[in-house]
Amino acid sequence: MINNILIVGCGLIGSSVLRAASSKKAAKKIYVYEKSKKNISIIKKIKNKFYLVDKLENISINFDLIILCTPMSEYLKIIPKINKFISNNTIITDVGSTKEIIYKNVKKNLKKKTTWIPSHPISGSEVSGPKFGDKNLFKNKWCIIIKEKNINKKHLSKLKNFWIKLGSSVVMMNCKKHDIIFSMTSHLPHLIAYNLIKTATSFEKEKKYSLIKYSAGGLRDFSRIAASNEIMWRDIFFSNSKNIISTIDLFVKNLNIFKKDIKSKKSLSLSKKLISTKKVRQKIISLKQDINKPDFGRF
Amino acid sequence: MINNILIVGCGLIGSSVLRAASSKKAAKKIYVYEKSKKNISIIKKIKNKFYLVDKLENISINFDLIILCTPMSEYLKIIPKINKFISNNTIITDVGSTKEIIYKNVKKNLKKKTTWIPSHPISGSEVSGPKFGDKNLFKNKWCIIIKEKNINKKHLSKLKNFWIKLGSSVVMMNCKKHDIIFSMTSHLPHLIAYNLIKTATSFEKEKKYSLIKYSAGGLRDFSRIAASNEIMWRDIFFSNSKNIISTIDLFVKNLNIFKKDIKSKKSLSLSKKLISTKKVRQKIISLKQDINKPDFGRF
Repeated sequence: MINNILIVGCGLIGSSVLRAASSKKAAKKIYVYEKSKKNISIIKKIKNKFYLVDKLENISINFDLIILCTPMSEYLKIIPKINKFISNNTIITDVGSTKEIIYKNVKKNLKKKTTWIPSHPISGSEVSGPKFGDKNLFKNKWCIIIKEKNINKKHLSKLKNFWIKLGSSVVMMNCKKHDIIFSMTSHLPHLIAYNLIKTATSFEKEKKYSLIKYSAGGLRDFSRIAASNEIMWRDIFFSNSKNIISTIDLFVKNLNIFKKDIKSKKSLSLSKKLISTKKVRQKIISLKQDINKPDFGRF
Repeated sequence: MINNILIVGCGLIGSSVLRAASSKKAAKKIYVYEKSKKNISIIKKIKNKFYLVDKLENISINFDLIILCTPMSEYLKIIPKINKFISNNTIITDVGSTKEIIYKNVKKNLKKKTTWIPSHPISGSEVSGPKFGDKNLFKNKWCIIIKEKNINKKHLSKLKNFWIKLGSSVVMMNCKKHDIIFSMTSHLPHLIAYNLIKTATSFEKEKKYSLIKYSAGGLRDFSRIAASNEIMWRDIFFSNSKNIISTIDLFVKNLNIFKKDIKSKKSLSLSKKLISTKKVRQKIISLKQDINKPDFGRF
């Protein structure tokens, strides 16, 4: 069992790690560092037992595991502070959504011989903040653990067991593969949702029609995704820019084919595409990524 | 009260009209025409009282209201048949998702002096077929009624009352405005969802990574929309092609601005856009087009 863990940043994900780790007894003692006063006042109401750390600078505890749960753009401000108290036995992980650039930057700045193994639990929502944290957030969800060369096997297995205790199904891959996969399954969909809402807003201004009130026909569902935390998503778009730009280009290429089919009324070609996407839906359901229940809107 | 109504095509929407009209007593007698044998066997199990019409050619009933609930590409096959028995007192409506071209084509082919007032109930789902029909499908949803010049006011008010009885909030506009608004709030979002799933499939092939299993990060939500009926959507894309192509162009224009921001790491410009889309979400919730409940996936 893990003795001491430190959660740095206690928003939606951090507070869910706290709740899950505490209720699953995944660590003997849980320490939490959070800088926002507003968040601290919410965290203090959480009933699970934990210790609130006042300043990272003042720490003199030996941690088995430190989990960075802040926006990724904060990591390089935190690393110099935790360098002062981490030991060779400490595993540093995170919950960030992109890996390749972040991995290198953290590695470069971390104290030598420290074990740095990034994680990415595939969970989250359009809401943020500790108020929405949930001990079941990771239950039956994938958690990606980054396995690069020369990894400390003992530490890797410790980290894996930690996420499994929190309810996750763990899968390992390297940074590069991670960033390619999630540029398509997560980063592009979010960008597209943001862009669709942006387009609807500019369209509304241009046409002078009030149209948001008719959003139940499809736009509504995108607006939820486009309400996700802006700092988190700015960091994701910037730190995985190369892969995301590739997916944008592929998306636009495909969209132009759709446009051509529509313009020249190519019925067979269009129908084929509309049918093929249904198979993906079936696959998603059979892989238990969604349920097979019709959605008529949430009321 | 309306005496006789005829529902032509009894899929998701047609069978919901049947269920709602019957349970709300919106008509004295409900007749249903459906050509698919599979659908007929499902419809026969519906407990609401109605009369199944065998052949449109054999009808000799005087209808107050005929509702076309087939795919829009079927209308011109149906019109010559119903021309044989409709009277000046019959209102012809439909439930199709595009209006301008369809309005003209139906008008051209309908018997002279017949009242043709298209409707568009803003309801539906990714599922289709009478199995999923629901008497509450129209409850608290918008129903657009098309109001063009020289409309028969008595008939208009009769049709309006019919949809209100089914639970809808009725709003009137002309074909042109309708098609512009819904190209943005419904047609583009569906096309984008189809295209995103198509892009994910081609990406998966290209990269040889199995990625659909990680779709919970965002892709999943689009796959539901992209599982909608392909005939219905082909008809929509073709019959509102001009407006849809304009929205595609605007979408790509905006996407290129996002791409530029990401490429050159324009933090302020990107963050501003990500924040502004949140306001649209708030508007959608305040307009009761969605609920303010966080979504962590449906399990």
